[in-house]
Amino acid sequence: MRYIDLNSDMGESYGVYRYGADTEIISSISSANIACGWHGGDPLVMEASVKLCLEHGVAIGAHPGFHDLMGFGRRNIVCTPQELRCYTLYQLGALSAFVTSQGGRLHHVKAHGNLYNMAAVNYSMARAIAEAVYDFDPQLIFVGLAGSQLCKAGAEVGLQVAEEVFADRGYKADGTLVPRSEPGALFDDPHQAVQRIVQLVEESSLTAVDGTVVKVQGDTVCLHSDTPGAVSFAQAVRQQLQQRGIGVRRVGGG
Amino acid sequence: MRYIDLNSDMGESYGVYRYGADTEIISSISSANIACGWHGGDPLVMEASVKLCLEHGVAIGAHPGFHDLMGFGRRNIVCTPQELRCYTLYQLGALSAFVTSQGGRLHHVKAHGNLYNMAAVNYSMARAIAEAVYDFDPQLIFVGLAGSQLCKAGAEVGLQVAEEVFADRGYKADGTLVPRSEPGALFDDPHQAVQRIVQLVEESSLTAVDGTVVKVQGDTVCLHSDTPGAVSFAQAVRQQLQQRGIGVRRVGGG
Amino acid sequence: MRYIDLNSDMGESYGVYRYGADTEIISSISSANIACGWHGGDPLVMEASVKLCLEHGVAIGAHPGFHDLMGFGRRNIVCTPQELRCYTLYQLGALSAFVTSQGGRLHHVKAHGNLYNMAAVNYSMARAIAEAVYDFDPQLIFVGLAGSQLCKAGAEVGLQVAEEVFADRGYKADGTLVPRSEPGALFDDPHQAVQRIVQLVEESSLTAVDGTVVKVQGDTVCLHSDTPGAVSFAQAVRQQLQQRGIGVRRVGGG
Amino acid sequence: MRYIDLNSDMGESYGVYRYGADTEIISSISSANIACGWHGGDPLVMEASVKLCLEHGVAIGAHPGFHDLMGFGRRNIVCTPQELRCYTLYQLGALSAFVTSQGGRLHHVKAHGNLYNMAAVNYSMARAIAEAVYDFDPQLIFVGLAGSQLCKAGAEVGLQVAEEVFADRGYKADGTLVPRSEPGALFDDPHQAVQRIVQLVEESSLTAVDGTVVKVQGDTVCLHSDTPGAVSFAQAVRQQLQQRGIGVRRVGGG
Repeated sequence: MRYIDLNSDMGESYGVYRYGADTEIISSISSANIACGWHGGDPLVMEASVKLCLEHGVAIGAHPGFHDLMGFGRRNIVCTPQELRCYTLYQLGALSAFVTSQGGRLHHVKAHGNLYNMAAVNYSMARAIAEAVYDFDPQLIFVGLAGSQLCKAGAEVGLQVAEEVFADRGYKADGTLVPRSEPGALFDDPHQAVQRIVQLVEESSLTAVDGTVVKVQGDTVCLHSDTPGAVSFAQAVRQQLQQRGIGVRRVGGG
Repeated sequence: MRYIDLNSDMGESYGVYRYGADTEIISSISSANIACGWHGGDPLVMEASVKLCLEHGVAIGAHPGFHDLMGFGRRNIVCTPQELRCYTLYQLGALSAFVTSQGGRLHHVKAHGNLYNMAAVNYSMARAIAEAVYDFDPQLIFVGLAGSQLCKAGAEVGLQVAEEVFADRGYKADGTLVPRSEPGALFDDPHQAVQRIVQLVEESSLTAVDGTVVKVQGDTVCLHSDTPGAVSFAQAVRQQLQQRGIGVRRVGGG
Repeated sequence: MRYIDLNSDMGESYGVYRYGADTEIISSISSANIACGWHGGDPLVMEASVKLCLEHGVAIGAHPGFHDLMGFGRRNIVCTPQELRCYTLYQLGALSAFVTSQGGRLHHVKAHGNLYNMAAVNYSMARAIAEAVYDFDPQLIFVGLAGSQLCKAGAEVGLQVAEEVFADRGYKADGTLVPRSEPGALFDDPHQAVQRIVQLVEESSLTAVDGTVVKVQGDTVCLHSDTPGAVSFAQAVRQQLQQRGIGVRRVGGG
Repeated sequence: MRYIDLNSDMGESYGVYRYGADTEIISSISSANIACGWHGGDPLVMEASVKLCLEHGVAIGAHPGFHDLMGFGRRNIVCTPQELRCYTLYQLGALSAFVTSQGGRLHHVKAHGNLYNMAAVNYSMARAIAEAVYDFDPQLIFVGLAGSQLCKAGAEVGLQVAEEVFADRGYKADGTLVPRSEPGALFDDPHQAVQRIVQLVEESSLTAVDGTVVKVQGDTVCLHSDTPGAVSFAQAVRQQLQQRGIGVRRVGGG
């Protein structure tokens, strides 16, 4: 049987503010990336999110972001490698406390928003983050955009890397994402997403918006939890994958 | 030989702001309580503070506080036990990441400012904090005001407790501190502080401002790092203790 | 014709987080209390909220709160009068910038959450806030819980005061609110709310949960914007008031 | 008689953290740029800083920065023009409340740190800030790096502009500052600074590090308040200017 990991961001609520369909999407995914209090998430949310994952057997990942709640970590902030290292360590440690105190174990790390986007194309940023992850726990799996500097840096510091593909985003012929401002950037048909995943699993490739077939390793597929229709989209994807004989499980198996 | 632990708060700088004489006082103490980013401290400061402690063989403690940088954690904020639990876990985990990634081990936990003060007289607060510490790592030593609810709660959840005495504060006959607004609250003569410590070590008692001798277990003595003359005060105390045959070492020995 | 003011809290969203049914409730109210960035609200939200009020002819009030986004300003934080003064000035000024730059004029001030609750029973807190409001602009109307220390302090510093009654909360015979933990604290029937308002307008009284008739001046009635059913509740209240011949308009007329 | 304005950043302390020699430098300058709580400054500091300026007859300016206390506003954060507009309005309003409540009047606006640096070379950012200033109060004087996009945008929206020159920084032949990482970026000799100012006042030019004479309008000269020797440097500059017959007064006279 063939397998794929389905991951979703989680625990991005804060105080009285609710964000994302965490409790509904949890049953469709195999991995969750939990916010660590900087771009979203507060300690109560972190505790509850970890509990939710443990109850559903979902792999728990840290989802560190920029220190910018007002911008939800979605703006470029220029930091030094030493800052990125320490910001990563801080957030990994904070989330890890909720995991170990509940008897779990942190499984992976995926940077959030523009920290992810900037580091995907900037080796020195990616390297600083990857080194922090390694120094915190070399057993952690490092998730990055497939083919990006994140994956390169993760591998070079000695981490197991999971290459991430987006199920609902258009790709260009060079393997990068179609910018959200351009046509073809997003699609909301679960069939298309499933097609993408099946091709990924069976042929290690994806088809770009111009028809080019791009070779790509895809270890994990991101499903959004904060868009309209996210829950039914995720359920449809999971169900159809099952029908196509593709199992859903965390990276690293188990 | 008899021993006492000398502890000091540390790592309370933030961004461009410097606070406390960390690099100077480090050679006089055996334990440091490092701020965790909420009342003071930022990730760069935390990394540097942990490094400083490891270089000097000083025991590293977490110093969690209220989420109130503007008030430096020195105002009462009314939180639920569940909030206190999660706030403690968050900060312990965050600091711990800097310790383990540098090859060290977290040694103790001491609440900061008004989190410490409120919990000292409120069992339910103290209990929430102590349980979080235990659930994070039951080997951690829990520091609290001697005779307070903190020490009671720590012992009841199964933690090793270190009872703390202040070397430069006046005590009342009932064993509580003279409020800072009253005469006799503070003294700045190292000789007095040494006398306090010697009496504590040799007789397990201290003398209140009205002359009453109060029985008290004192495992650790707090030296301030942020007052004028703090460095020379600490050096004088350490030196005079040595002359009196009292060694300075972390709680739990080693 | 008789009139009452209906007010609602507004602009409490933050970044990606949505909160409250602002755009729907706006047509039912005559006054809005706009968050100022500390317990909720960010500058983009403030700009949009002021615009919304100006478009609907709704009186704009500042809604300052504690510096505690994580707790949404709903926890007690112990501050000095000087701190309260400066925190009030800061938030009033910040909101005012959005009002004047859009050609409007700030109309009133109502403290938020536990700043409101604490000051309602603490004259020194109420006085510090009232003085800040007066020093910022003596023409502002000062909204406080009917009969509370807020109203007393506002009057004593020379501000016009608007006494506030809650349309959906039970009152005790002494004129204070039934705590939310007790039966009768809340009701969700618009008829009851309208009855409360009619009695308030026509007889300057309200009926407590035990049947006692309490004399009370009520200048403004708070409608919640963040509870389930808030929008239809507000619409029903407004419509029924009209049928009863009671107009809805801001305090101070106009 | 000829005049120059000497300005300094001020009010950048926060909570327990002290920053800058505000009370000492105040007697050497004619204008102060007061932090507004985002990159530094808290409401108590703002109140005190405004008071200090009013007591010394120093012109009060707002000094808005990025929402980044941890980075002191000294990192690039990519914001939209609408965000910059609202962030500027928020901070201007907040500071203004302390000025008007003490009977003063806001005089000018100077962006802080990397908000200043980014906008100096980015017209769309500069324009968004300038428009916010104009919409808040068209009488305000807009301070920007001499010859920069800030000055261009300020003039185009209809504000009076003050072109700023740095007394202790080296310039390149094209009129831009020598980066801090290169030799000649900074000098600490008050004589050199005075020479710079005299040339500026008498010849409307400055001499670049390579000897080129650059034509520049200089309305205001920045003196740092947070460097070692800042106070004596400022005093020496002020005294020597007096000896050279150059008066020190705010832009716009008075």
